[in-house]
Amino acid sequence: MTRKRVTLRDVAAAAGVHASTVSRALDPRTRARVNAAVVQRVVEISERLGYRPNAAAYSLRTSRSRTIGVIVPDIENPIFPPMVRGVERTLLAHGYYAILGNTDGDQAREHMLVKGFTARGIDGLVLASVNREDRVARDAALGGTPVVTVNRRLDDPTVSSVVHMEDSGVLRALTHLVSLGHRRIAVIAGPQDTSTGAERLESFLRHRETLGIADDPRLIAFAGAYSEGEGERCLEELIVRRAPFTAIFCANDRLAIGALAALGRRNVACPGDVSVVGYNDMPMVDRIHPPLTTVRVQQYQMGVEAAAILLAMIDGAGEARHAVLPVELVIRGSTRALAAAEAG
Amino acid sequence: MTRKRVTLRDVAAAAGVHASTVSRALDPRTRARVNAAVVQRVVEISERLGYRPNAAAYSLRTSRSRTIGVIVPDIENPIFPPMVRGVERTLLAHGYYAILGNTDGDQAREHMLVKGFTARGIDGLVLASVNREDRVARDAALGGTPVVTVNRRLDDPTVSSVVHMEDSGVLRALTHLVSLGHRRIAVIAGPQDTSTGAERLESFLRHRETLGIADDPRLIAFAGAYSEGEGERCLEELIVRRAPFTAIFCANDRLAIGALAALGRRNVACPGDVSVVGYNDMPMVDRIHPPLTTVRVQQYQMGVEAAAILLAMIDGAGEARHAVLPVELVIRGSTRALAAAEAG
Repeated sequence: MTRKRVTLRDVAAAAGVHASTVSRALDPRTRARVNAAVVQRVVEISERLGYRPNAAAYSLRTSRSRTIGVIVPDIENPIFPPMVRGVERTLLAHGYYAILGNTDGDQAREHMLVKGFTARGIDGLVLASVNREDRVARDAALGGTPVVTVNRRLDDPTVSSVVHMEDSGVLRALTHLVSLGHRRIAVIAGPQDTSTGAERLESFLRHRETLGIADDPRLIAFAGAYSEGEGERCLEELIVRRAPFTAIFCANDRLAIGALAALGRRNVACPGDVSVVGYNDMPMVDRIHPPLTTVRVQQYQMGVEAAAILLAMIDGAGEARHAVLPVELVIRGSTRALAAAEAG
Repeated sequence: MTRKRVTLRDVAAAAGVHASTVSRALDPRTRARVNAAVVQRVVEISERLGYRPNAAAYSLRTSRSRTIGVIVPDIENPIFPPMVRGVERTLLAHGYYAILGNTDGDQAREHMLVKGFTARGIDGLVLASVNREDRVARDAALGGTPVVTVNRRLDDPTVSSVVHMEDSGVLRALTHLVSLGHRRIAVIAGPQDTSTGAERLESFLRHRETLGIADDPRLIAFAGAYSEGEGERCLEELIVRRAPFTAIFCANDRLAIGALAALGRRNVACPGDVSVVGYNDMPMVDRIHPPLTTVRVQQYQMGVEAAAILLAMIDGAGEARHAVLPVELVIRGSTRALAAAEAG
């Protein structure tokens, strides 16, 4: 089945010209220097023979591989595919491709991937869900590789990022719950070593008093990871503490899905007994039971912006850039107004 | 922020050896030819300076890029991320990376991606969800690029593939419905230009009589694509035909999700009035309402097998290989026994 690859010399021989002429004729930047009829003949013959210019040679000549490393914790986590899609589509429009890597949230693996990718000569890195003090991301940026973090950011502002207006998202979710009569609102906070986990909790604490939400530390549980399992565990923890609540604000949808599962097992009805709000609006949360009220982030657009920033950096933009995208609240079946008696 | 890259010559100068010695010391295959103390000094210095061997130069020397193109219709479709994950993890263990492309099911876009990838010198291609007569896949294989199709296969057996035991999956789903008393079983068939769509329908037709399932063409609707929207449309079509049914066998989960949504809008209860079976066991279908009974395919393993076949082909295995993976039925809340009166 395997045939020998067609070389530049094969095309040159078939076209009756020198190999360097073929090379110039096929390169859009040098094509103008070759006679138009020759260009046409070379293009036709190279297509007929199935000749493919050698990317490695191009890469050596230009010191660009036109490849971007995209590193996510886990492509199976539904919030990442739309982001990867946005990156890929934007890159492709500029002739760049995306190499994908998964870290499983393991810094050693992230380090290994970044090393492997940079050894392959990638032109830049999109890093999803770094921690606030992610050394791998910082080292790559310090080493001269253009880096953009998406979804989360480093504490270090010299590394470019695309994130969302966290404070706006939290405020919308809380205002919704308060408008429905909820005051005793439990929180399942995300990991505090991530910018999203820290910023969403800070926003809750900042707005709590103004909104008249109960100030009770027993109502705040801390997830160690953004996972369904941690959502379940935190819900159990909140219940064991015996401080009553009528609503739960979860730092992301996976935590909310876990909380819903744990509520179901305890025969606590959502939204009948407890309202639940998630964060991200990840795929399928509109189809679970009950459909989840959540803060919608711009997963796809996040990828588009990250790719755009990266391409600008590759083209020589020296300064770090930060994009902050707006969010919206999507109201579905998991939240409902507190009955007057309960609210009292 | 951008620093100049450290070159081989920088390392050589710092180590006080010739550049070719650095090159040999850093290549695991030639390292034995260099004095051990020199190897250690070169490795230490190259790490301290942050030197990265140039992948483009390696690629030119070996004519391998150690990169595999992985092309899916849409990474946002939940059945693909586990497959991509399986490919990526298996490749990484062998020092290969995955470049990702999305086609949106568009042959022209698939062609463009394959062209771009081969121009970059990829060593092989994993193609998900090709059509039965996919020209792009055939041409790439004929052109000498190792190709494996996953999830679906070409009619042409000379192109390697990883698929599932379709007949076994369909038989399990139908036997389950029949054991629950269902005989009037509607089918939402997948696109017939795909191997999965054609094979799942053929299996249904093959086993229908033996299982005592009603032979009624009004009970078979054809989806034009594997999408929720087509599932909804087909359900409406089935209802308009006015031939009664107590269960629906859907050619994949997305069609089933669409059918469930359309049933819900018409206030037809699932599983109370109609049982629904899907196919794939894609992520989250255990959390929708009702949780979906479905045939579980091995999404992750499919990717692992595809990568393994591809690596064998790259290492010189000439023959096309075909892996056929087993499936299992996962019984959840969307199917239930027909009441005696209804079954009569």
